[in-house]
Amino acid sequence: MKELPLGKLYYEISRHNPPALSIRPGETVRIETEDTFNGLIRKEGDRRDLAKKPQGNPQSGPIWVEGAEKGDTLAVHIEKIEARIGQAANDMTWARRGLAEFLGHDIPVNTRIAPVRDGKVWWSPNVALPYRPMIGTIGCAPDFGSPTTSPAGDYGGNMDIKEVTDGNTVYLPVYVEGALLHLGDAHAAQGDGELCGTALEMPATVTMTIDLLKAQTIPRPRIRSRDEIMTVATGRPMERSVAQAYSDLILWMEEEFGVPRWDGLSLCTMVGEISVGYHFIGTVAAKIKLEYVHAAAR
Amino acid sequence: MKELPLGKLYYEISRHNPPALSIRPGETVRIETEDTFNGLIRKEGDRRDLAKKPQGNPQSGPIWVEGAEKGDTLAVHIEKIEARIGQAANDMTWARRGLAEFLGHDIPVNTRIAPVRDGKVWWSPNVALPYRPMIGTIGCAPDFGSPTTSPAGDYGGNMDIKEVTDGNTVYLPVYVEGALLHLGDAHAAQGDGELCGTALEMPATVTMTIDLLKAQTIPRPRIRSRDEIMTVATGRPMERSVAQAYSDLILWMEEEFGVPRWDGLSLCTMVGEISVGYHFIGTVAAKIKLEYVHAAAR
Amino acid sequence: MKELPLGKLYYEISRHNPPALSIRPGETVRIETEDTFNGLIRKEGDRRDLAKKPQGNPQSGPIWVEGAEKGDTLAVHIEKIEARIGQAANDMTWARRGLAEFLGHDIPVNTRIAPVRDGKVWWSPNVALPYRPMIGTIGCAPDFGSPTTSPAGDYGGNMDIKEVTDGNTVYLPVYVEGALLHLGDAHAAQGDGELCGTALEMPATVTMTIDLLKAQTIPRPRIRSRDEIMTVATGRPMERSVAQAYSDLILWMEEEFGVPRWDGLSLCTMVGEISVGYHFIGTVAAKIKLEYVHAAAR
Amino acid sequence: MKELPLGKLYYEISRHNPPALSIRPGETVRIETEDTFNGLIRKEGDRRDLAKKPQGNPQSGPIWVEGAEKGDTLAVHIEKIEARIGQAANDMTWARRGLAEFLGHDIPVNTRIAPVRDGKVWWSPNVALPYRPMIGTIGCAPDFGSPTTSPAGDYGGNMDIKEVTDGNTVYLPVYVEGALLHLGDAHAAQGDGELCGTALEMPATVTMTIDLLKAQTIPRPRIRSRDEIMTVATGRPMERSVAQAYSDLILWMEEEFGVPRWDGLSLCTMVGEISVGYHFIGTVAAKIKLEYVHAAAR
Repeated sequence: MKELPLGKLYYEISRHNPPALSIRPGETVRIETEDTFNGLIRKEGDRRDLAKKPQGNPQSGPIWVEGAEKGDTLAVHIEKIEARIGQAANDMTWARRGLAEFLGHDIPVNTRIAPVRDGKVWWSPNVALPYRPMIGTIGCAPDFGSPTTSPAGDYGGNMDIKEVTDGNTVYLPVYVEGALLHLGDAHAAQGDGELCGTALEMPATVTMTIDLLKAQTIPRPRIRSRDEIMTVATGRPMERSVAQAYSDLILWMEEEFGVPRWDGLSLCTMVGEISVGYHFIGTVAAKIKLEYVHAAAR
Repeated sequence: MKELPLGKLYYEISRHNPPALSIRPGETVRIETEDTFNGLIRKEGDRRDLAKKPQGNPQSGPIWVEGAEKGDTLAVHIEKIEARIGQAANDMTWARRGLAEFLGHDIPVNTRIAPVRDGKVWWSPNVALPYRPMIGTIGCAPDFGSPTTSPAGDYGGNMDIKEVTDGNTVYLPVYVEGALLHLGDAHAAQGDGELCGTALEMPATVTMTIDLLKAQTIPRPRIRSRDEIMTVATGRPMERSVAQAYSDLILWMEEEFGVPRWDGLSLCTMVGEISVGYHFIGTVAAKIKLEYVHAAAR
Repeated sequence: MKELPLGKLYYEISRHNPPALSIRPGETVRIETEDTFNGLIRKEGDRRDLAKKPQGNPQSGPIWVEGAEKGDTLAVHIEKIEARIGQAANDMTWARRGLAEFLGHDIPVNTRIAPVRDGKVWWSPNVALPYRPMIGTIGCAPDFGSPTTSPAGDYGGNMDIKEVTDGNTVYLPVYVEGALLHLGDAHAAQGDGELCGTALEMPATVTMTIDLLKAQTIPRPRIRSRDEIMTVATGRPMERSVAQAYSDLILWMEEEFGVPRWDGLSLCTMVGEISVGYHFIGTVAAKIKLEYVHAAAR
Repeated sequence: MKELPLGKLYYEISRHNPPALSIRPGETVRIETEDTFNGLIRKEGDRRDLAKKPQGNPQSGPIWVEGAEKGDTLAVHIEKIEARIGQAANDMTWARRGLAEFLGHDIPVNTRIAPVRDGKVWWSPNVALPYRPMIGTIGCAPDFGSPTTSPAGDYGGNMDIKEVTDGNTVYLPVYVEGALLHLGDAHAAQGDGELCGTALEMPATVTMTIDLLKAQTIPRPRIRSRDEIMTVATGRPMERSVAQAYSDLILWMEEEFGVPRWDGLSLCTMVGEISVGYHFIGTVAAKIKLEYVHAAAR
């Protein structure tokens, strides 16, 4: 297993970033990530100093995957996401966006430190939430454009989809030689929508096995769990992202599993599910259980 | 128990519709509803004749609730939703809206008849989906405006939220004397988003107990299951409905359960969930488990 | 010329409203309208009492047009819009919607009374704006649904399009016998977007000639000036309304003027214009100069 | 006057692009640009070969402005925009986005070559449109992220605002040393919304004088003509961009001209105007006549 300890951090998912580690397809990597706050919030009372660190979502990597080329797909199997310092933090600075209209404008500075222990994340001394770790931001460098780590897009990025979690495999389009995989922005817990703009953010150690699917091209990120397949789309208005994500799912069901697309449309209408990433940028995943896909393909 | 067999159907949720049944608060009612196709699709090959029946979602009722006045809330506890003729139907006429951009334009006429038996709805001879009945359209007549049964709004209407199901209680604002509760548009199964525009639509028999909460005013529909509370909001863009539904939920948590609103915002960020109604009109429900609400209120 | 002095006012555009006046096609009518504030703001310091008058945009009429039937079109030629009491008023109560995010939340109560004289409306003692009167809300009663006077839709309604002005002809779909034309909500001046939610609102006297186009069906409102044709669409997101309004315009150019639709699309790309109604509900008009339409049809 | 003939073209607005020309503030530059099609459409029958040239909107430059630093503003006064080869071209490849829902899916390949002469652009042998040249894409390189030339944002980019025209001054935020001004994508004519996705696209020669405003920071692009000031905002839904652009305009009126913001809000409500860029990405400019601004400031 290869190791990549915390090193230089990047605020763009960019082909200009030099690889920090080179692997062969099929290798397992253990990589350390910093939290979205650049580590500036470690105890109650800490504040983000935006003058010092204007950007969030620092990325570890990039990882060079030998043999990867434009048109391939990376299959990132996430084995484990560990809370690197045993805690997570929340800050509501961004909540003003979209919520002030409904909740009022006096959103407090409300830094919260949540210990992670016993499979729980302690939102308060009384309230233990299930520890459901996830990677908020992940993607391969595009060949045109270098997005910052704030938006999401066809390349992945700041999707904040909670199904990017341990046990699942994330499929990402490859655009440049070596793929240049970036990741960071781990969460200890997050609901649908990442309502206030940041979740329970944590420095993490991520263990993952990275495979390369040669000459298999996908338009946008996909996820596979033991039971489900999922497709991710981003953009406003969100209702359009819902339609796009489901359409991607239906086309996947047709191509790989043999479910005719109009049957797939009907089936997703009946048993499809939506998982919502950061609501403000309209990221969603469309999901369906594999048992229905297999049954419909018969 | 009072009974209301299928009678005159309405295509508006309107104070101009005369009551079909009068009940006292606390009474249980058994009411028959027609499907969204006005019963025009009963077997493979049947087609909607829009010249004959231009509107969908016919409503049964309205039910007059004694003592109900503007500013009250109706609590509709749904006991049971039965498939009245043992089958449901799907039609993809509306799928063009929003999906043609992604899936192509040649969406077929694809009428599907799905038998309901043994707790399943048979989408095809090979594919049995769980029978998860729900009421797509429900609401009390507004005091200004008479919406058709296509949109949804603060009054309820065509929400297509799958949590409007048996075992749950739906709370609806009352605007006029007697409340004038309308309902219809039952589904045997529906996923998030009601992707193609109609689900597995069925004529149903709905058994429900209707309570009246005097002088308790709510801004929009709410739902309560044994484990969760939920709030429903509608409108485009959907990302705004997500923010509005969550904000309603947070204010409900504050008022009734004593969770300070900014704590509620943080909690919904970590464990809130979104259920998507008909995606094209941006209806969503925001949900949270009661165990978290109670714990956070301590 | 027939006269309709101010009488009972309506807050819905509804087939349930009894006609206040009956005319024959081709007749000229002089009709008095109240302002959107129900006349509650006549001098500085006046406030809207929402408890007394919860709704805005009171409508005069409805006018029964003899012979009008579903599927016809009403052609309303607006001759003159006069400021009935020589002044207009503005109030920024609704500005919070959408603007607080950018401008801050402390939007003041800021009632403004603007005298109308010498072809100007005096926004302040120093600032005279051109008097450009318009009718904010106009439409024929739908056959299904009775919208309040807040939204807009295919029937017209609260479009707030400044081209609904003197000298222009507005075309409106007829849905019920007699057409039942409602109108009100006149403005002395309004820019694109009706940014703060109300413009310079005035009680008005509207002189108009109403023609009936038998068996000519239009999907949504249209406007014709001496030089331009225009089509109106409503809905969020606004970018979709822009596409819909232009598409209506292109189809009109094809049907009536003989410009093939793909040429029309190209032409609207080059010289089409957009006029924005109330931005929050996404109402826009797409416009093109007739000289281009005629030239392209050759 | 400095000259920059057509040279290497860029498809990102990026700090990684090496300067092609260095100037001192106040200098006039004559720069050649290629059209959005990379010059692949020069005569009827030419087609875009997306395999060869996958990206559009090639950029000339970047221009290094001596002394420019993050936090400054570039004032680009556009003197002249000439049609470099005496013609423009249109192609409707992108029209499918958003329009197929309304116009049908069979949008033709419809390449059109339009000669530019006598102050007109000849859309067809019979239809002469006014030659109203504009620069579709312009901006300084951001310090984080390298956007492609498809989107627009706070840095400028593919705004497609027709007021970026000769005689006007465009103000652009500076993010990196030297500013690194990119531009391209000139149009001979374009209406509101750039409906089909490309306008009358032309290779151009742009003459402009570039000034540097030290330590004057603006959040997003601004434009000034002899009579008007304008602010540009981008994003979906477009109704939010309208609110953001107007809010920028109101804050500009307050800061530079002394109009209190709530007066500015009222004034923009009455006489503000919206110009629509590429509708699909929600770019708009909010405008107001300087005569009103000056009068309101008294």
